[in-house]
Amino acid sequence: MAKKNVYFFGGGKAEGKASMPNLLGGKGANLAEMASLGIPVPAGFTITTEVCTEYYANKGKLPKALEAEVKQALARVEKTMGKKFGDVKNPLLVSVRSGARKSMPGMMETVLNVGLCSKTIPGLIEKTNNPRFVFDSYRRLIMMYADVVMEKAAGIEVAEGQGVRLKLEHAMEAMKHAKGVTQDTELDAHDLKILCDAFKKIVRDTLGKTFPDDPMEQLWGGIKAVFQSWNGKRAIAYRRIEGIPDEWGTAVNVQSMVFGNLGDTSATGVAFTRNPATGENAFYGEWLVNAQGEDVVAGIRTPSPLNKATKTEDNKHIKSLEEAWPKTYKALVNVRNTLEKHYKDMQDIEFTIEDGLLYMLQTRTGKRTGFAAVRVAVEMAESKLIDKNTAIMRVRPEQLDEFLHPMLDPAAEKKAHVLAKGLPAGPGGAVGQVVFTADDAQAWKEKGKKVILVRNETSPEDVHGMHAAEAILTAKGGMTSHAALVARGWGKCCIVGCGALNIDVAKKQVSVGGQVIKEGEWMSMNGSAGKVYVSALPVLPANPEANKWYKRIMQWADAIRQINVRTNAERPEDAAIAVKFGAEGIGLARTEHMFFQPERILYMRQMILSQNEAERRKAVMKLLPFQKADFIGIFKAMAGKPVTVRLLDPPLHEFVGSLLEDPEELNNLAKLCKVAPEDIRTRVESLHEFNPMLGHRGCRLGIAYPEITEMQARAILEAATELTKKKIKVLPEIMVPLVGTKKELEHQVAIIHQVAADVAKQSKIKVNYMVGTMIEIPRAALVADQIAQTAEFFSFGTNDLTQMGFGYSRDDVGGFLPIYLQKDILPADPFQILDQEGIGQLVDMAVQRGRSTRAMLKCGICGEHGGEPNSVKFCHRVGLNYVSCSPFRVPIARFAAAQAAIETPRKAAKKK
Amino acid sequence: MAKKNVYFFGGGKAEGKASMPNLLGGKGANLAEMASLGIPVPAGFTITTEVCTEYYANKGKLPKALEAEVKQALARVEKTMGKKFGDVKNPLLVSVRSGARKSMPGMMETVLNVGLCSKTIPGLIEKTNNPRFVFDSYRRLIMMYADVVMEKAAGIEVAEGQGVRLKLEHAMEAMKHAKGVTQDTELDAHDLKILCDAFKKIVRDTLGKTFPDDPMEQLWGGIKAVFQSWNGKRAIAYRRIEGIPDEWGTAVNVQSMVFGNLGDTSATGVAFTRNPATGENAFYGEWLVNAQGEDVVAGIRTPSPLNKATKTEDNKHIKSLEEAWPKTYKALVNVRNTLEKHYKDMQDIEFTIEDGLLYMLQTRTGKRTGFAAVRVAVEMAESKLIDKNTAIMRVRPEQLDEFLHPMLDPAAEKKAHVLAKGLPAGPGGAVGQVVFTADDAQAWKEKGKKVILVRNETSPEDVHGMHAAEAILTAKGGMTSHAALVARGWGKCCIVGCGALNIDVAKKQVSVGGQVIKEGEWMSMNGSAGKVYVSALPVLPANPEANKWYKRIMQWADAIRQINVRTNAERPEDAAIAVKFGAEGIGLARTEHMFFQPERILYMRQMILSQNEAERRKAVMKLLPFQKADFIGIFKAMAGKPVTVRLLDPPLHEFVGSLLEDPEELNNLAKLCKVAPEDIRTRVESLHEFNPMLGHRGCRLGIAYPEITEMQARAILEAATELTKKKIKVLPEIMVPLVGTKKELEHQVAIIHQVAADVAKQSKIKVNYMVGTMIEIPRAALVADQIAQTAEFFSFGTNDLTQMGFGYSRDDVGGFLPIYLQKDILPADPFQILDQEGIGQLVDMAVQRGRSTRAMLKCGICGEHGGEPNSVKFCHRVGLNYVSCSPFRVPIARFAAAQAAIETPRKAAKKK
Repeated sequence: MAKKNVYFFGGGKAEGKASMPNLLGGKGANLAEMASLGIPVPAGFTITTEVCTEYYANKGKLPKALEAEVKQALARVEKTMGKKFGDVKNPLLVSVRSGARKSMPGMMETVLNVGLCSKTIPGLIEKTNNPRFVFDSYRRLIMMYADVVMEKAAGIEVAEGQGVRLKLEHAMEAMKHAKGVTQDTELDAHDLKILCDAFKKIVRDTLGKTFPDDPMEQLWGGIKAVFQSWNGKRAIAYRRIEGIPDEWGTAVNVQSMVFGNLGDTSATGVAFTRNPATGENAFYGEWLVNAQGEDVVAGIRTPSPLNKATKTEDNKHIKSLEEAWPKTYKALVNVRNTLEKHYKDMQDIEFTIEDGLLYMLQTRTGKRTGFAAVRVAVEMAESKLIDKNTAIMRVRPEQLDEFLHPMLDPAAEKKAHVLAKGLPAGPGGAVGQVVFTADDAQAWKEKGKKVILVRNETSPEDVHGMHAAEAILTAKGGMTSHAALVARGWGKCCIVGCGALNIDVAKKQVSVGGQVIKEGEWMSMNGSAGKVYVSALPVLPANPEANKWYKRIMQWADAIRQINVRTNAERPEDAAIAVKFGAEGIGLARTEHMFFQPERILYMRQMILSQNEAERRKAVMKLLPFQKADFIGIFKAMAGKPVTVRLLDPPLHEFVGSLLEDPEELNNLAKLCKVAPEDIRTRVESLHEFNPMLGHRGCRLGIAYPEITEMQARAILEAATELTKKKIKVLPEIMVPLVGTKKELEHQVAIIHQVAADVAKQSKIKVNYMVGTMIEIPRAALVADQIAQTAEFFSFGTNDLTQMGFGYSRDDVGGFLPIYLQKDILPADPFQILDQEGIGQLVDMAVQRGRSTRAMLKCGICGEHGGEPNSVKFCHRVGLNYVSCSPFRVPIARFAAAQAAIETPRKAAKKK
Repeated sequence: MAKKNVYFFGGGKAEGKASMPNLLGGKGANLAEMASLGIPVPAGFTITTEVCTEYYANKGKLPKALEAEVKQALARVEKTMGKKFGDVKNPLLVSVRSGARKSMPGMMETVLNVGLCSKTIPGLIEKTNNPRFVFDSYRRLIMMYADVVMEKAAGIEVAEGQGVRLKLEHAMEAMKHAKGVTQDTELDAHDLKILCDAFKKIVRDTLGKTFPDDPMEQLWGGIKAVFQSWNGKRAIAYRRIEGIPDEWGTAVNVQSMVFGNLGDTSATGVAFTRNPATGENAFYGEWLVNAQGEDVVAGIRTPSPLNKATKTEDNKHIKSLEEAWPKTYKALVNVRNTLEKHYKDMQDIEFTIEDGLLYMLQTRTGKRTGFAAVRVAVEMAESKLIDKNTAIMRVRPEQLDEFLHPMLDPAAEKKAHVLAKGLPAGPGGAVGQVVFTADDAQAWKEKGKKVILVRNETSPEDVHGMHAAEAILTAKGGMTSHAALVARGWGKCCIVGCGALNIDVAKKQVSVGGQVIKEGEWMSMNGSAGKVYVSALPVLPANPEANKWYKRIMQWADAIRQINVRTNAERPEDAAIAVKFGAEGIGLARTEHMFFQPERILYMRQMILSQNEAERRKAVMKLLPFQKADFIGIFKAMAGKPVTVRLLDPPLHEFVGSLLEDPEELNNLAKLCKVAPEDIRTRVESLHEFNPMLGHRGCRLGIAYPEITEMQARAILEAATELTKKKIKVLPEIMVPLVGTKKELEHQVAIIHQVAADVAKQSKIKVNYMVGTMIEIPRAALVADQIAQTAEFFSFGTNDLTQMGFGYSRDDVGGFLPIYLQKDILPADPFQILDQEGIGQLVDMAVQRGRSTRAMLKCGICGEHGGEPNSVKFCHRVGLNYVSCSPFRVPIARFAAAQAAIETPRKAAKKK
């Protein structure tokens, strides 16, 4: 049987279904599903994503079989709708829309009103008795078609401001000006008819081609243009950010037009089955009388509230759909209930009311904030609509970040003057400098600045700038506008529909009342309350546990996860925050940071510049009391929880390099050490390395200068002894860094055990401690079986493992990594997301080999991947006992670990 | 059954045999073997190496069972020799000597004449009727024992010049001075008796202990001292150089003394069954009348020739053993023949003639020069004593280096004045600056200087300096002296017994006749002829094929080896030398070296400093004709042989970094590029990397700047096309460097194929070429299966693989590698000898995984390990098709490959 390219839906029947998004795209699959459910959907058909793939494989040629299939499906649509495409009396008009597997809002092209032409216009006028509507639809068709099909899809490159669409808009503005009106709606049928003729002339003059007057030609042009838009610049950029593969392709949905702009008994709207910002179980939406759907989404007109639950201070005076057309509203509520029950998830829907009749144009899983994701999941689970595991899988681990987001200090907010209020589209607090274009946002961000992007409204062209910004503020648009949708998807602070703003992009300033705020001025935003302030307000850390739904879902997650989550911290304050966020120990306490304080670095430098062991030992031992105090602090903060302390790691040059630029400091040190400044200079220079990353660091230091290891081991063990005396439980795990051979580890372990024996003898107290190593050198993974004979635990330093495994210096990767990502050589930055395919093999291998010689070997990860959800899941799968990450990533890691346990349960829980 | 600790030999019987060197040490095993063969060997016994291991494991305690076993064996020795240890009438004296698995000449301790004491002295005087001999033996015993047992083995550290031995020597000198004599032999029995008393007093005063007067106490002191000397400084240093494991331990041989110093019918000598310098099949040795064995080896008296074959210009007037005592000589020749026939290899033997009776004290495989090793092996194989494979296994691949050694230009030698002549102890020519101490030799070498070490004689304390020197020249000693033995073992140029030298170490000068040569002056040596010149003579490259034995054994080796040997070269001259040495292709032609010539670097820099692709392409294309000419040269030199060309590899900073130090050059470039010098400076600085080794280099350049790859591919393919037109066979293999992911390679391969298609279209000639990659990044080995889908060949860049696999920067490893070797953390420098255990896994894995997706994948190695014999053998074992190394290592690699094929034959020969 030949491959089926086209799937019909409509009239209570459908060839596709919701489970076919890969083939039909999300929109097509769900239209089919709705049709099958008996929900009123305008009839139509979906051309599969496979056709898109074929289209690109065959350099822009569509498969031969397609034409016949489209004709057949079109005939069925005509029959269902009782109209005929291209018919002079009762013409069917259709929309042509994209629809990828995963929603890419606004990133691809759409053509509406296809089928309007000189021969169908009179019939439609007669049928609707509304010539103004018909010509308005026609001018919209010409505008979209010229832009999307005749210019963009044809690959015509135009300079900024030279595009055909802009020219057509200017023509329309000119006509309004000539007529002395300001609104599109003030142009009458006659005006629009003239405008359509003018449009067609401009199209011909600009593009050298005539606007097609044949419905079938329009239809095929639209279909091809949608396929073509899959590889448009915007779509590609969006796919990069979202990690959507290029190979997926888009489907094309051809659907009967229904009109929300047919007059005052028509309307259009979008809604969420629950509140997408808070997750509250209340029907939530917006609508506009006499409008097409794009008008709501584009945020050009601020829409009306759907119902009482959607009303705000700003729009409570406007009639809701519930109030205006209660019967239609009730029909819509029924659809809402059907959909939630059927899909068992919060839906994002689009509807049109044509002459009082309700049509559903789309349903899809609704994007939501992290707050909403958690609340919806918990409430659905508690009402037994879904089970707990499903609830956990419903929240992306990264979304928890919102709970950890800082917020504006409420006390400061109370005192501050509220500049303006808008709709709270993305929660949390944000502070930044104001910029007015997406490009500026990106450029400033690259310079390390925090910016707030202020726009009248945003469009898909702004996505890169929105991504760069701390927060987004728009003057227009509602809770379902482009800005709101995108910001919510990213968990970004966002306020929309802030009508008080008067933005002058050319002057790079915004005025509110009389107050003018210029580019670069500081602004603060409370995205949860929709409040804007002109100053940098103080920001408070997050307190996630205050949210009952968060608390609940984290309890569920903790109950199911099989690996522990620790934190990377060396300051007691940070450790305390991490414990608050659920850390079960410290996976990495770096000791070198402790040496940079002024009083300490002096001894550190003396140590480094020593001429012989005796001198060096003397200097090192001066550091002992400091180190001991550090460890007492951190062990106390983590009482009863394991603490992994890494011995000195960085090359010594890091501690003395700055002396070369600071002659005074150098001279002081020379005096103190009683040596000539020149000698110090020479010694410092001799410590310079060509590739310090691969130089004299890690355990190579402890082997060359065993007294350093001795001092550190003593500090750890004396601190542990002192606290043990005070009945505080201490579980130190001493970690030897940068081990590549068993003998290196043996050398260091022998010193540590010797010191431990000395300390135990002196204090008559024996503390429990473990000695292990970081696996961060590829060779260590290869000989992990040998190393595990000596190591009691492994901690994967995946940062260095990635550096050495890939041969990428993290400090220099900026030279080529952006090119690699752009050219799709790498799927992601391997320093952010663990390269499971390559570097992951080393981790997996080391765990297996290590446990082949030490069955109970404790394994963890302390590289920065330990807080990245995909990497956490990998760690679960390869059998690690714990992951360790920065305090603010701890909840995310806990949650990702739970998802991993649901996706791939392990035989034995390794929790300790 | 309890473990046997002691093995008896003597009287035609032995408990041990030659095949037990691991247990008995080389010396003990061979003494046993000789005894079994009926060769006259003074009876004795061997304490096993296992006892040594136990001795160290138990912190210096000997196993309990040992005492009884030693007593039992001693009784058997007494019975065999008809004397009794400690007997007052007919006392047995014994020697106590070390004996490791592998000979470590002079590195451990020996005590002779053990058993002499106040109660045995009178009996021995009566028995020998030679009181002078007895007291001379006694003073030797005291001297050795005090030094070796009472001082060194007791762990007493003494300052330079404060050792007990030196004090005893001073006492002896003082007595000679008082008596007005110069030679030891001029002291009579009475003098020596007094001296012995004086010695004992000095020993007591210096060491606070009395010299033991009990034979058994002496014996056990000697045994322990030998075990102790296994961990002496010299022994450890030697083991490091020779790669002998610390765990092996030494055996102890206790053997009846026989005396070569019993008068004029006694003598001692050492001999080789063939000439150890040339390999000539002639009995070769030296002897001394009335002397103990150490006198010959120490080189204090220049010995007499053994026979006619051993006579030289300098000693032809001295009576040979053959002439002096023809009967004894004949007995010795019989022993020689027996031993060679039995051992089937050239032997190094020691003998003593006591009162006309011949005793053999040692036989072992004789150390030999590379020249000798090859000739002996070939001649033994041709005479059917051994087979060809055995012959090949008899030569260490590194020994072939001698054939490749340069020699002094004979024409220049003819004209030059010969300063002095000595014995040609180590072949080849050498030129260097004169130094007079081992420490100076090492220090100068570390500064990059070439030195010749000039000494009166060398001792084991000089080993580090001898290793550092280009050549060794001694005033004393014969062909079997310490200097000669050690130099021969290393294939180093060496002249000994150069009596004309008057060396003044204090003044750091040597005079010959009236001519004074000071430290730092240049000297040239012809080690094959024994000639010394005072000037730096020109040196000629080697011509190994002129040696018929070399030619023969290399033919045998080439016939058996299963992998090919290529060379790393980019200049046609070097390629030609390599072909002469047997290279079968080029495994690595680096293209970056070609860009450093003045006319080229200009374009290279323009390319690097280009602002955009168009500019860059223009600059790059200017390099095309140069590159093409380079490839034509190298392809011609290698006509018919494969040539692997690596695309640009180093970071761009290498080409422009020097501009920052050369403002003039920078300004010139700025003018040429029409940009501000400051802009160039900024760009150059922006190219600086923290870890350039892990930075923007290799294929990362070709991906960022595809035009570079295009140009290089075009140069290669146009060159190949041009030569193909001229009927010259060209086999280019284009190698993409630093690949870590399949997509990187795909990106570059697509460019290369595109260029190839273009060139083929333009020229209408299709050249065969391959495209492959270097496996030098650990990740590449891990995903080799994927990479092999695109790569037609792999070439292992084990230098970088070692750098990244170990995390060692080759440029910075000096900071810790010496410490690692000294502390035995690493067995060897992994950049010299491939770390088979760790990095080797990556190679093995990559070969297997690569061939899992491309069965016929060609695999080779182009890192510097490709010329290191152990690494070559590894390459054979893991199934590589070829190794590639520097031209001068090619014969060594060919030979190592043959040995590998003998040791581990592969199923299928992969030669292509």
